[in-house]
Amino acid sequence: MTDVDDDVPLILTWDDVTSGLLQEDENGVGNYDIVNNVAIPTPGAADPRGQNTLHQSWEMNYQEAAIYLQEGENNDKFFTHPRNAQALRAYLFAHNHLFYVMELLTAVLLMMLSLSEAPAVPFLRLDVYVHATLELLALVLVAFELCMKLRWLGFHTFIRHKRTVVKTCVLFIQFIEAIVVLVRQTSHLRITRALRPIFLVDCRYCGAVRRNLRQIFQSLPPFIDILLLLLFFMVIFAILGFCLFSANTADTYFKTLEDSIVSLFVLLTTANFPDVMMPAYSKNRWSCIFFIVYLSIELYFIMNLLLAVVFDTFNGVEKMKFKSLLLHKRSAIEHAFQLLVSRQRPDVVSLKQFDGLMRFYRPQMSTRDRFLTFKSLNQSGATMLSLQDFYKFYEVIGLKWQAKRSEEHWFDDLPHSAFLIFKGINLLVNSKAFQYAMYLVVATNGIWILVETNKLHGSSSLLTEGVSWTRVVPLSYIIFLTIYGVEVLLKMSGLGPMTYFSSGWNLFDFSVTVFAFLGLIVLAFEMEPFYFIVVLRPLQLLRLFKIKQRYRNVLDTMFELFPRMASLGLTLIIFYYSFAIVGMEFFADAVYPNCCNTSNVADSYRQINVTFGNGTKLEEGYYYLNNFNNILSSFVTLFELTVVNNWYITMEGVTSQTTHWSRLYFMTFYIVTMVVMTIIVAFILDAFVFRMNYSRKNREPLGDPEGEKGIVFETEVSQTEALHTLDLYKHTFCISNLSSLQDMCVALERSEQSSLVFLGRRSRTKSDLSMKMYEEEIQEWYEESSRTNLQPDETFHRDLDSREASATDSIN
Amino acid sequence: MTDVDDDVPLILTWDDVTSGLLQEDENGVGNYDIVNNVAIPTPGAADPRGQNTLHQSWEMNYQEAAIYLQEGENNDKFFTHPRNAQALRAYLFAHNHLFYVMELLTAVLLMMLSLSEAPAVPFLRLDVYVHATLELLALVLVAFELCMKLRWLGFHTFIRHKRTVVKTCVLFIQFIEAIVVLVRQTSHLRITRALRPIFLVDCRYCGAVRRNLRQIFQSLPPFIDILLLLLFFMVIFAILGFCLFSANTADTYFKTLEDSIVSLFVLLTTANFPDVMMPAYSKNRWSCIFFIVYLSIELYFIMNLLLAVVFDTFNGVEKMKFKSLLLHKRSAIEHAFQLLVSRQRPDVVSLKQFDGLMRFYRPQMSTRDRFLTFKSLNQSGATMLSLQDFYKFYEVIGLKWQAKRSEEHWFDDLPHSAFLIFKGINLLVNSKAFQYAMYLVVATNGIWILVETNKLHGSSSLLTEGVSWTRVVPLSYIIFLTIYGVEVLLKMSGLGPMTYFSSGWNLFDFSVTVFAFLGLIVLAFEMEPFYFIVVLRPLQLLRLFKIKQRYRNVLDTMFELFPRMASLGLTLIIFYYSFAIVGMEFFADAVYPNCCNTSNVADSYRQINVTFGNGTKLEEGYYYLNNFNNILSSFVTLFELTVVNNWYITMEGVTSQTTHWSRLYFMTFYIVTMVVMTIIVAFILDAFVFRMNYSRKNREPLGDPEGEKGIVFETEVSQTEALHTLDLYKHTFCISNLSSLQDMCVALERSEQSSLVFLGRRSRTKSDLSMKMYEEEIQEWYEESSRTNLQPDETFHRDLDSREASATDSIN
Repeated sequence: MTDVDDDVPLILTWDDVTSGLLQEDENGVGNYDIVNNVAIPTPGAADPRGQNTLHQSWEMNYQEAAIYLQEGENNDKFFTHPRNAQALRAYLFAHNHLFYVMELLTAVLLMMLSLSEAPAVPFLRLDVYVHATLELLALVLVAFELCMKLRWLGFHTFIRHKRTVVKTCVLFIQFIEAIVVLVRQTSHLRITRALRPIFLVDCRYCGAVRRNLRQIFQSLPPFIDILLLLLFFMVIFAILGFCLFSANTADTYFKTLEDSIVSLFVLLTTANFPDVMMPAYSKNRWSCIFFIVYLSIELYFIMNLLLAVVFDTFNGVEKMKFKSLLLHKRSAIEHAFQLLVSRQRPDVVSLKQFDGLMRFYRPQMSTRDRFLTFKSLNQSGATMLSLQDFYKFYEVIGLKWQAKRSEEHWFDDLPHSAFLIFKGINLLVNSKAFQYAMYLVVATNGIWILVETNKLHGSSSLLTEGVSWTRVVPLSYIIFLTIYGVEVLLKMSGLGPMTYFSSGWNLFDFSVTVFAFLGLIVLAFEMEPFYFIVVLRPLQLLRLFKIKQRYRNVLDTMFELFPRMASLGLTLIIFYYSFAIVGMEFFADAVYPNCCNTSNVADSYRQINVTFGNGTKLEEGYYYLNNFNNILSSFVTLFELTVVNNWYITMEGVTSQTTHWSRLYFMTFYIVTMVVMTIIVAFILDAFVFRMNYSRKNREPLGDPEGEKGIVFETEVSQTEALHTLDLYKHTFCISNLSSLQDMCVALERSEQSSLVFLGRRSRTKSDLSMKMYEEEIQEWYEESSRTNLQPDETFHRDLDSREASATDSIN
Repeated sequence: MTDVDDDVPLILTWDDVTSGLLQEDENGVGNYDIVNNVAIPTPGAADPRGQNTLHQSWEMNYQEAAIYLQEGENNDKFFTHPRNAQALRAYLFAHNHLFYVMELLTAVLLMMLSLSEAPAVPFLRLDVYVHATLELLALVLVAFELCMKLRWLGFHTFIRHKRTVVKTCVLFIQFIEAIVVLVRQTSHLRITRALRPIFLVDCRYCGAVRRNLRQIFQSLPPFIDILLLLLFFMVIFAILGFCLFSANTADTYFKTLEDSIVSLFVLLTTANFPDVMMPAYSKNRWSCIFFIVYLSIELYFIMNLLLAVVFDTFNGVEKMKFKSLLLHKRSAIEHAFQLLVSRQRPDVVSLKQFDGLMRFYRPQMSTRDRFLTFKSLNQSGATMLSLQDFYKFYEVIGLKWQAKRSEEHWFDDLPHSAFLIFKGINLLVNSKAFQYAMYLVVATNGIWILVETNKLHGSSSLLTEGVSWTRVVPLSYIIFLTIYGVEVLLKMSGLGPMTYFSSGWNLFDFSVTVFAFLGLIVLAFEMEPFYFIVVLRPLQLLRLFKIKQRYRNVLDTMFELFPRMASLGLTLIIFYYSFAIVGMEFFADAVYPNCCNTSNVADSYRQINVTFGNGTKLEEGYYYLNNFNNILSSFVTLFELTVVNNWYITMEGVTSQTTHWSRLYFMTFYIVTMVVMTIIVAFILDAFVFRMNYSRKNREPLGDPEGEKGIVFETEVSQTEALHTLDLYKHTFCISNLSSLQDMCVALERSEQSSLVFLGRRSRTKSDLSMKMYEEEIQEWYEESSRTNLQPDETFHRDLDSREASATDSIN
């Protein structure tokens, strides 16, 4: 504290510090305009007594600004912002990765419990008191997490936050049930277990799932409208079908109105077509018109309309989501900015303040990177950041900084002879001829595999002896593998490991080749359970698809979609889980071999002796395997129901063993999966069309090497600047850990140049693409938001006012 | 010919007239610049000797201009433009509705012949010599049509026109085959019959089908790329599946590599799921992972990708099509314009020339409408049309003209007491209360029908006696019908029949009510075959969907889509036809009851006696009904294959009775229908999203009454103008049939106003919507086309030059 640091924050945060400084304010340090909540700058006011408090209050401001920026990033609403120092402590406790992991593990543990509970997977069965105790433990943890949240949010905000309230109620019910189970030492009908995924959905790491669910719910209203139209036509046709076909005694599908509706519901999924038509068709050939018209209207028109409506809504929702996220981030930046400016200069943020912010926002970031980020924000060349500069905060924050290297290849520093060799390899590897030769090898390999597999079939007498043939390693396999191995080594040495692994395709080549080698080792040591690695060899052929531009685009889009697809998959699994629990509670052990003799799907469940002219033969109906006996079987059964082919056999089997209300379960499941599947289709369509439009608009081919590099920022640092900054950090900011900055100075000295260029890179995200796509509209949005709402500043002050008010509330 | 008419056309068309006039030109009437093919205007040159020729040459020009405009409308390429007077005669012969109808009927007759040929529909069977003679007759007609086309196009253009060449070849083959059949008196293997739809596709009236086919072919390249990816994964998984499951002797699905591929192909359509999984699943529960991964990748990812790629291509193709059509029309207008201007005033077209054009272009149009169309084109107020005015030609040509009526209701002219009554009805009918009362009645009716149908089921003992219950008219039915009848009468009298029927919904109400009354009469007279009309009564319920805006939108879009959907349906039927012919030739009579005992789908074809514990029961396998025994059965079978559920049963049945190459037929059919279906889905998506975007962009709600009116043009005609025009027509143009113009003058006099406003209306087409959607881009396109090509005029002259050259060719 050698230097006099007389910057006073424009806005003081959190009551305990604020009150101290406000007093001083009243003592004459500055005029604080309570009404407008803006400090009136008092230039040159210095008060050594206040230094320590001032430092402390700056630290508080840094922290709150960092929290605002975090909230902007995570799309947390500002009304959950911590209000006072106590809330802040709880907030910090609840916002670190350790806490998040605990949250996740608790939720997963709770969900996994159903593997061991009552209709358990045989080899995972646990005693009642064990799993009930585990459950209680997990629930206590959840309760603890909720308490932390209550402390942070305060009671008022807590009960305003819908998701948290629901979670609390579910927790309460689960608690009671767990205790009841522990006391009675037996599981009762516990459908509420279907609500367990709520704990998972609420996890910080499951934000994507939450967003998906929100999107699904937003797409629901138009979906339900069209669904009603669909069901309406179904009922009309059911009445018609009942009138037309119920007179035919051979026709079991239209006996009653209920049968008729169920038959047409199943027909909508096409699962019982043409079977449902056959009895009527055999009696009167013209009856096929009824079915053709029904399917044309329902399946080929209304179902597609459903997709169109959902696609359209989805499209709109995506754009609105992007817009609100963008505006939210912008407002977060404005909040943070106001906390970083000083009374003396209320328009700009200095390096010191920025560094202070970053120490809270990204504690792991080195001093050098903080300085470089500041410089890359500061495009105008002034020494301080204006609000306009600061708006780019989220664009530069993720950058990874590296000094720009002058050398082209990794082997440029090697002795001359080695350099020549590697240079040769490099040229070879980059040549078209080498590429096409490899494609040729892969293609040959593909044909070889096909021929060989076919030959295996020729000598099929060998096959019946079991899986032994997988141990026979054909010579061709070893030859091809050697070629791939040599290719990988050549490429790696020619391009350097860094460059090699930076391409996704090379990574794929590498892993497939390594897996193949592992397979060979597995074969050599005859490790039985790993033999499936050997059958992965045809995956090598996937490399052939690099040849054509379109496949590269498709596969690149596929990789880009993957995270979103995974989160959609997880969403689907959450629905599966709930349905599996309900299914297990009601239908466990309902079906078994030779059950369901009263239903008309009895054949599928029966192991029968059929008598033909040519003797007796045992036929096996395997459908009893599609049951709800434990959660794993339930998942498989539900997947089969999702695919919808023959799903009515499972439905009718279960129905014949329970009541005909069971059908409601299966039909509801069908509709729910239809919603989710339609949204998945809409999502894939949207993502793909978006990519196509993007590349068309920017006249940039998809999968272009330029694009693959991602976002790159360049920043030049001169030697004098570096030394000055180091000095500044050392003496003015009193920050001790400066090794990264010192390294930079050393590097600058060594390079014998007056300045060094640093490159900041990050991969391109969907948000970057959207920014470019909606370029023109974004400006409109900004203007609109500042017009229709209050001015950004006013919004901010209004927000501050309300916070001030609530802070006063909590004090009184 | 009292008036001297000295306008000389700027450009002279067709050699016979041209040569005559050119001679005169050389005699001194004007200078004709042969090199640039432009006549140099010679003001005031009048030559009574040339009057007759001049008149004739104007008529020729009108006709050619009309032909250009027709070509622009029909999107015929200009290189098929008739080159000389002889070609013109053939062109005119081949371009009228009588010829088109003949073309269509011939094509339909040829296609219908397959109903009576060899595997004929039983009650339509004809002797070989009858149907072969009919075929020859039809083929002769087609040949005659082709000859006309040859005359019109000339040999050079004829063989440049790909479609026509293909048609000729097919015709030739069919001719030979028909003669062979007639000689041998028995049908041989005639797969070439599958090519018959070519004659239908080539019809003028099937332009929409042709466009669909073109669009399908344009979407093919990206489709095939993704299809290859799909098949590639299928083969990889087939190898994997073969390796994993072939050791299981109970698993018949993966016995050989071929079985494995076929199983996975069928699984792609989900038709054999979960059956294909069950043997493996029963042996090892983890084997389900193979199937889940396969389906997730193939069905839920790549199939959707396929849709996305086709949708994207489709989107682009739609826009390109619109663009090229627009530019083609514009160029047609330019061509026509050049033919209508005179040497004296080469920039404008007068009413006389316009009227002359319209006499050829729309012979049915009345003189008044021609005059009004001219006026509506002529927005600038000048007496003649510039090229800019003329560009709007296609927008105004379809207008239906009507004098604007000052009265609001149809009953305004009635006596006072009647007026009051009708006014009351009008107010009642337009009131919200009346509407909602009707909705309530319909809803009650709906519930009533459901309850009643259910009650019928309760007394189901009655049912088994046959269809007699349909003759029981419940009292409620008569009551509801009376209410609907009263409503229709009230509405019709309150709104006037014209206004009433102008709304599609009212039309729907009316027809449903009339059908219901017809049903009642049918019941009263016990006309058996019409009893199905009675079961249409639930259709009344469709009216409920008027309540909500979204349903109105959806149903309106549905009606708008209908023509396009119908043409897509026809396209599909053409594919069906070809496949049905091939199927009949190879698989007729292949399956029958109790066939296919060697296949593993034998059950579906068998009428068996199954022995249970509880006795013997006959079970019927109806699949033998899905055969290719005649073209109607084939169509039903193909529809079943389209729906893809259980399609492999039909495939395996046929395969077991023929060779395993038959599978190729079924798989090809699946892929072809997949293409067409994907395109139908893409089309529905595109149309719907387009409508949504359109209404969003123009901030106009869908199904808005404003929009329903369609396009309206207003033109005001003053009395003096009308009289002047009548005079002009009578004396200058020497046109005799002027009753419509005279009527207009009379109406003007009677109305006692100085002017009368005429309204031209037409319904809005997709092209109008596109015009508005792509407003900004259209200007770009125009500029681009005039930049990248030559100037419009130059293009035109280049075109003229080449024509002149070819005309010279044909003279020499």
